[in-house]
Amino acid sequence: MVQGSSISGFPEWLPSERAVEQRVVDTLREVFELNGFIGIETRAVEQGSSLLKKGETSKEIYLLSRLQEVGHESDTPVEERIGLHFDLTVPLSRYVVEHTGDLTFPFKRWQMQKVWRGERPQEGRFREFVQADIDVVGNGELPSHYEVELPLVMVEALERLREFGLPKATVHANNRKLSEGFYRGIGLTDIEGVLREIDKLDKIGAEEVSKLLIKECGANESQAAACLELAELTAKTGEELKSSFESLCIKHNISTSEDNESYALATEGVETLAMIVDEAARIRPGAVVADLKIARGLDYYTGSVYETFLDNAASLGSICSGGRYDNLVSQGKKKYPGVGLSIGLSRLVSYMLHSAGATVSRISPAAVLVAVWNEEDRPACNEIARKLRERGIATDVAPTAAKLGKQIKYADKLGIPYVWFPADSTESESSKDEVKNIITGEQTVADATSWQPDTVYARQTVSCAK
Amino acid sequence: MVQGSSISGFPEWLPSERAVEQRVVDTLREVFELNGFIGIETRAVEQGSSLLKKGETSKEIYLLSRLQEVGHESDTPVEERIGLHFDLTVPLSRYVVEHTGDLTFPFKRWQMQKVWRGERPQEGRFREFVQADIDVVGNGELPSHYEVELPLVMVEALERLREFGLPKATVHANNRKLSEGFYRGIGLTDIEGVLREIDKLDKIGAEEVSKLLIKECGANESQAAACLELAELTAKTGEELKSSFESLCIKHNISTSEDNESYALATEGVETLAMIVDEAARIRPGAVVADLKIARGLDYYTGSVYETFLDNAASLGSICSGGRYDNLVSQGKKKYPGVGLSIGLSRLVSYMLHSAGATVSRISPAAVLVAVWNEEDRPACNEIARKLRERGIATDVAPTAAKLGKQIKYADKLGIPYVWFPADSTESESSKDEVKNIITGEQTVADATSWQPDTVYARQTVSCAK
Repeated sequence: MVQGSSISGFPEWLPSERAVEQRVVDTLREVFELNGFIGIETRAVEQGSSLLKKGETSKEIYLLSRLQEVGHESDTPVEERIGLHFDLTVPLSRYVVEHTGDLTFPFKRWQMQKVWRGERPQEGRFREFVQADIDVVGNGELPSHYEVELPLVMVEALERLREFGLPKATVHANNRKLSEGFYRGIGLTDIEGVLREIDKLDKIGAEEVSKLLIKECGANESQAAACLELAELTAKTGEELKSSFESLCIKHNISTSEDNESYALATEGVETLAMIVDEAARIRPGAVVADLKIARGLDYYTGSVYETFLDNAASLGSICSGGRYDNLVSQGKKKYPGVGLSIGLSRLVSYMLHSAGATVSRISPAAVLVAVWNEEDRPACNEIARKLRERGIATDVAPTAAKLGKQIKYADKLGIPYVWFPADSTESESSKDEVKNIITGEQTVADATSWQPDTVYARQTVSCAK
Repeated sequence: MVQGSSISGFPEWLPSERAVEQRVVDTLREVFELNGFIGIETRAVEQGSSLLKKGETSKEIYLLSRLQEVGHESDTPVEERIGLHFDLTVPLSRYVVEHTGDLTFPFKRWQMQKVWRGERPQEGRFREFVQADIDVVGNGELPSHYEVELPLVMVEALERLREFGLPKATVHANNRKLSEGFYRGIGLTDIEGVLREIDKLDKIGAEEVSKLLIKECGANESQAAACLELAELTAKTGEELKSSFESLCIKHNISTSEDNESYALATEGVETLAMIVDEAARIRPGAVVADLKIARGLDYYTGSVYETFLDNAASLGSICSGGRYDNLVSQGKKKYPGVGLSIGLSRLVSYMLHSAGATVSRISPAAVLVAVWNEEDRPACNEIARKLRERGIATDVAPTAAKLGKQIKYADKLGIPYVWFPADSTESESSKDEVKNIITGEQTVADATSWQPDTVYARQTVSCAK
């Protein structure tokens, strides 16, 4: 006697919607594996102590308790309890440390799993959703070429989704060293604070951010103005980036001499970012731009940071974010620097379904429904189905020997394109099986051991209805 | 600074093991979809009130609390809290009620997701694992042919796994009506109690079960003996089943007259079970046997029940269980009877990996590693990789321009069969790309726009090493 009841923030797809999500998952996996990424899954839970350590979401976790522990939860400190992971980066880090000896480095992995955020229910916010991540983690060191290759793998994957209606995606890249060097150069010291406020730009606008920089981060008016000027910089080439940044430094009296540590730090970031935009432009023009307002809330990023926006979908925000983290994973003195990006898959699929017009060709995976004239014929119908399935043709058999119209309606509701009419055993020996395409109306004699559906009707497919 | 730490009961696979699990998942999905089952996913959580209602696992649930609620968990009654689902049947039932208007009935669905059991940690027991389920749910009624078709779909799926080393699987079927009718016929009334004790036969043996039947279920010695005699019955044909059951009824003085309600109920069960074994024997001889000790702990089953055992793996217990449930789902007066089976996938994969010898051909999905002579050549190497990937050949590029031996070692550790040597741009124009199969040692001139790997090395495959 289970009652239906939706729970706010825990979305569920209808079969036709789930089919689109499944196709998106399949497509991403295909691209990730073509690029040599290895698939893993981690357990859904982590120790409280791991979950509490880092990042913007550290306060938005779900803790677990066994039913038997109800009323005694507080006996165990939160650090020693277990909770649901809120992303796939913290679990990856723990997995790498736990299995170091069994992994080959650099370890390139893809991972698609549900994550949970113990947020207060809010309109349009998911508390359970799927993330699709790629990361590469080095042992001790990690070459910077991955900082351009990984965003390009994501662009390649998102590009494949355009046939399902997704608009063009552009990765906006920045570098933490660049930002930090600049902020220090103009005399600010609360770097994490400044990044946190700059990250709010799209939400609350420049004026409010300026106020917060002054109120929360010890900036004066001209320092706040300089931070906002930096955030306005964008560039499509390394040269453009370098020259704009240089001008801004000079304008704000940041010494560009070699022995200015802040400038040296910023220059490291500029060099990497310039390499990324130039190399990306060579491989896939227009896919990656330098955008110096990109801050990312998570504090474990140490170099490149990325956000990805869709054309004409600004309100959706970033659909694929990430960055380089040099200090997230360590074991004793050993460090495991990584770089990775994460697609918020559930939100992306929601957008594809409700705004971009992605639709599945049919609800059932079956291409054929075998009609049943009488229940006594069911074994023969099952045998026809077996022959079709043996040759890879997904087939369903009518649930009951109802009137033919009802059976066709069942096929029609599920979008099954073909209805198979078994030969009538009560008729002459010459009676033959026939198959009807109920979309085109075409009907032909057919043999279950050799008949093939038209290519366009062979498989469940996803396309864009718009 | 994430530290590695395993959590008892939350298994995780290494990449080579995960590859086997992924292949098992892919294979099951293929078989389910060939048979016209529709894939869905449900949210990981249900209302406490749903989770507490039914079945053996109702006391083994994990409840969630937001970090902010720590210390105040008990303010909310368990029924109003949310918890992780412990199976996929309760969520399916709720999904059907919630989305009735959007579904076509009978609704055939497959679902593969993690489930959680808030058990005390015990050797060899998983608290997080994947289940692979198929169910068909009717609107008001559900034809009995599904009670033979669904176990056969599972057998078909398990049969496909034999090439990965899985032993032959046999479904053992029983029927609750048969058991209940018999128990009532000999004068017992605590039917759920008797089923619960009979379910322990394999674990604790006949003698202990007999004691429990007497102690817990109000049976006398001869009633207990009769229950155990019934549990010993097996049959490979409907006729054999009917005649053995009839004899047992006569022996225990159960009137076989039509107006004996208990016997009439038992006969309903016998008829269905006889149909199942006969029809299954016709389609797939040896796949399904009648085995009257099968009880299933869950109390929502109302007719057929199934457990599945592997040859020579008795200690593993049932790997795929299920049954028919007529009263689990209802909405007002409307009922949604269902029948379904569930594979305990994590345990099955664990057995395949550790006992049956399933192994993956390589850790990386990549068939090719492009060697890098100098970092300056990396763009050209990436271009080679792009051309190969464009034609569906999964390709990785060497992480650094290390000594060739080190690059080959990287490929070898990941099991990547081919290493691609780009033409040396510093040599004459006539220098050509070459590709070496590092397993066979064969090396040939190759063009990235046309070369194909040998079929046997083209894809990551799973086979049996034994």
